[in-house]
Amino acid sequence: MFNSIEESPLYQIANPKSIVFFGASNSISAMGTNLLMSLQTAGFEGAVYPVHLKEEKVLGLNAYRSVLDLPEVPDLAVIVLPTKIVNQALEECGRKGIRKAAIVSGGFKEVGGSGVALEEDLKEIAGRYGIRVLGPNCLGVANLHHKLNTTFIPYEGPGGFIGLASQSGSFVTQIFDYLSKLGLGFSTAFSVGNEMDIDLIDSMEYLAACPNTKVIALYIEGIKRGRAFMETARSIVPHKPIVALYVGGSETGKRAGFSHTGALAGPDDLYSGMFRQSGVIRAQSVTELFDFCWVLGSLPKPEGPRVVIQTHSGGPGAAAADSCGRAGLELPALSDDTVEKLTPFVPHTGSINNPVDLTFSKNPDDFYSNIPQVLIKEKKADMLLIYFFTPSKVLERALKQMGLSEEEIMDQAPKFMDHQCSSVARLLETDNKPIIGYTFRSLQEPSIRGLTDRGIPVFPGPERAARAIAALVKYASFDTRKLDW
Amino acid sequence: MFNSIEESPLYQIANPKSIVFFGASNSISAMGTNLLMSLQTAGFEGAVYPVHLKEEKVLGLNAYRSVLDLPEVPDLAVIVLPTKIVNQALEECGRKGIRKAAIVSGGFKEVGGSGVALEEDLKEIAGRYGIRVLGPNCLGVANLHHKLNTTFIPYEGPGGFIGLASQSGSFVTQIFDYLSKLGLGFSTAFSVGNEMDIDLIDSMEYLAACPNTKVIALYIEGIKRGRAFMETARSIVPHKPIVALYVGGSETGKRAGFSHTGALAGPDDLYSGMFRQSGVIRAQSVTELFDFCWVLGSLPKPEGPRVVIQTHSGGPGAAAADSCGRAGLELPALSDDTVEKLTPFVPHTGSINNPVDLTFSKNPDDFYSNIPQVLIKEKKADMLLIYFFTPSKVLERALKQMGLSEEEIMDQAPKFMDHQCSSVARLLETDNKPIIGYTFRSLQEPSIRGLTDRGIPVFPGPERAARAIAALVKYASFDTRKLDW
Repeated sequence: MFNSIEESPLYQIANPKSIVFFGASNSISAMGTNLLMSLQTAGFEGAVYPVHLKEEKVLGLNAYRSVLDLPEVPDLAVIVLPTKIVNQALEECGRKGIRKAAIVSGGFKEVGGSGVALEEDLKEIAGRYGIRVLGPNCLGVANLHHKLNTTFIPYEGPGGFIGLASQSGSFVTQIFDYLSKLGLGFSTAFSVGNEMDIDLIDSMEYLAACPNTKVIALYIEGIKRGRAFMETARSIVPHKPIVALYVGGSETGKRAGFSHTGALAGPDDLYSGMFRQSGVIRAQSVTELFDFCWVLGSLPKPEGPRVVIQTHSGGPGAAAADSCGRAGLELPALSDDTVEKLTPFVPHTGSINNPVDLTFSKNPDDFYSNIPQVLIKEKKADMLLIYFFTPSKVLERALKQMGLSEEEIMDQAPKFMDHQCSSVARLLETDNKPIIGYTFRSLQEPSIRGLTDRGIPVFPGPERAARAIAALVKYASFDTRKLDW
Repeated sequence: MFNSIEESPLYQIANPKSIVFFGASNSISAMGTNLLMSLQTAGFEGAVYPVHLKEEKVLGLNAYRSVLDLPEVPDLAVIVLPTKIVNQALEECGRKGIRKAAIVSGGFKEVGGSGVALEEDLKEIAGRYGIRVLGPNCLGVANLHHKLNTTFIPYEGPGGFIGLASQSGSFVTQIFDYLSKLGLGFSTAFSVGNEMDIDLIDSMEYLAACPNTKVIALYIEGIKRGRAFMETARSIVPHKPIVALYVGGSETGKRAGFSHTGALAGPDDLYSGMFRQSGVIRAQSVTELFDFCWVLGSLPKPEGPRVVIQTHSGGPGAAAADSCGRAGLELPALSDDTVEKLTPFVPHTGSINNPVDLTFSKNPDDFYSNIPQVLIKEKKADMLLIYFFTPSKVLERALKQMGLSEEEIMDQAPKFMDHQCSSVARLLETDNKPIIGYTFRSLQEPSIRGLTDRGIPVFPGPERAARAIAALVKYASFDTRKLDW
């Protein structure tokens, strides 16, 4: 580990002031062109120097015949050239004095045969010049806080709090939109490719020191430095949670992973043990990876595994109770005090148990404010899980019946919903207990977005919510039980 | 079982020509008003008679002081009155000659105490007049093919192919929009409530005979007639798949379920055994319930568990391979013949294994047509699983680079995508093998909707796809192994 983030070999790769770009042209059919377009879309503010043998301009930027012609020594080289000329380009970067490179080109170790020797040669060149290399066979880096994106898919959104180190470039670039729809984003995401030099562990160290990163996500097909991984993880976990998805454990996953980055996979339980012993929380799918990051990065630590569920519908309440049970969470009975305080708000067809079920609620204030305010104070519960279901249509129907005009409805409905959402979100600040939602509606509806944008994770379905809560509980238990998970 | 669907006690409940409606007013704060509005939104074409003590008109319809005043004997009574006057209303329905009722009102057996006696009394009245009752404590029925919806949430979409019998009304009414976003819908959905008379098994029998229903979904908190359930399921499964979600198995789920409909839950493994022995496929969550219905209702039966995966990105390919492995599916190596045919389409950085990984593909025709056409013929594979990722932005960027104007792009891009989607969908018809997709993009994007609207299920993430495929394989194995699953 290093003392300051600037000491990380990834610092200039994630925060370059200037970039030389190999492999972009004015033709969209070249992959490099797409990557340079992504960089432009992100609004990168530093100098960008495309190298091209023939063109005067590449995507509107002045092009150079050779990296040796550049007016300065750029912080970073991004190389997206055909395999056979990559090594020569790196050699020239070295001669220019460049000391950081992201090599996107594939065709090295991962394809076997002559690719293995080619990567050995590339490594020798990097070593000779002291160039620290991300890749080859990667998609580089995205740091939207620095308006940097060297990956395939353009993205204009803001940066978020999830730091990713990934042995798949797709899980950087093809996930921007997915996260954005949850109201999330990457702090910085590294595609490590073949890990010829910089690897997953270097990336973890960078992300541990990165002030924008609240939680670290790992996509793993195979770890090469097992002991270093565990030591690094153990040093990070006490102050920043790590979630890992490992896909190489099954026979089929192993085969697919090998042909992808050439990383060697091990048996599933070996990795499980390694994660457990180093305090890393394991996800079983990409969905879970980011679900877990969501709660770990945005909610306070719960004191225990006790959940109180609030619903206005029996089925969703029972399904949530079932999901919580399966995820190893507890549903305590409510205190007499809580029951007494809730009585005025729950009709006789409802149920003041856990789940608290209003059945049919006439007053949204009960659901969004009066009841959560009581439940958050329940001493026997550590967290609040709420079923949200307020389609705009239903709200508009109610306002229409109240005699409001179409215009007034369009004006009032969003404000009303916003007020309800902020009532719930305020409890996060006042009571410092996790609040999690679930729904079967689109997460893009204003009534849901009003919650997620205020830091309350809302999951599509109770099973995802329950498993995410269980991950949060697991991480919270770290403090007391140390690394003996 | 009955010989014709008209013999089902649910036939007139799901296909009434006329309805008397108790409990609707002109105030939105009455639940009955909301339900009548849903009926109107659905565009119900039969006669509707609101009964109201004071109003002349209810929601624009002529109101009647008493059911006894109606000009005809309606096929169905929908009762959404306060608990204490429900029994009297049913008595009057009986006197009028009405023989079918959906009683939405709660406050009966599910609340315990005096509610139990009240339900006994209600049952006596129904029995005396020979009235078949759905409920009480239910949300009635939705049959969009008949423009019928007595539930809380309005829905204007078309009917679909999933028949639902649910011990939760929410999982009828709060799921319309969820299904619609997947391009799915209910054929007919019954909320059975307390099952005082008509129960889950009666609903299964109706759905088995219903020509719009291709697959039956069950949401279960507790089954009262275990033997009848198994016998009925066994008779249905050979010609129509059944998927069940049971949430009463955990201690917490049991408690929540009991306070909901008063149904008695049993241990989880008892239900698992019951499902297994009767050929019912068990889902572990609401999400899975409808995922499984999706593939079972729209895809042909596979001959075995062998999947070939097509991707243009290593990570999503490896993650899918891992998910398939965990779901018990097999990933066969490709035949020499297939490898030979694929070679022209896969670049040297790609991989002609299983998953077939193009890495970076320049030609969409390869991905949407040339490669799937080869893979669907692979004799060693029973199904094709494809990773879809074609954001509109990327396509539009490509067309822009080709020199098309903004206007031409707006015109051409959708047609181009539509053409690609139909290339894939055509294989469903020509080769009769299941094709399933997965993506991390929104299912509402045109490039995905073009597939789902053509009958190709596309799941958010490979783990849901793999588990759904496993359910399909399980159902397909029924034919050969009989009921010894």
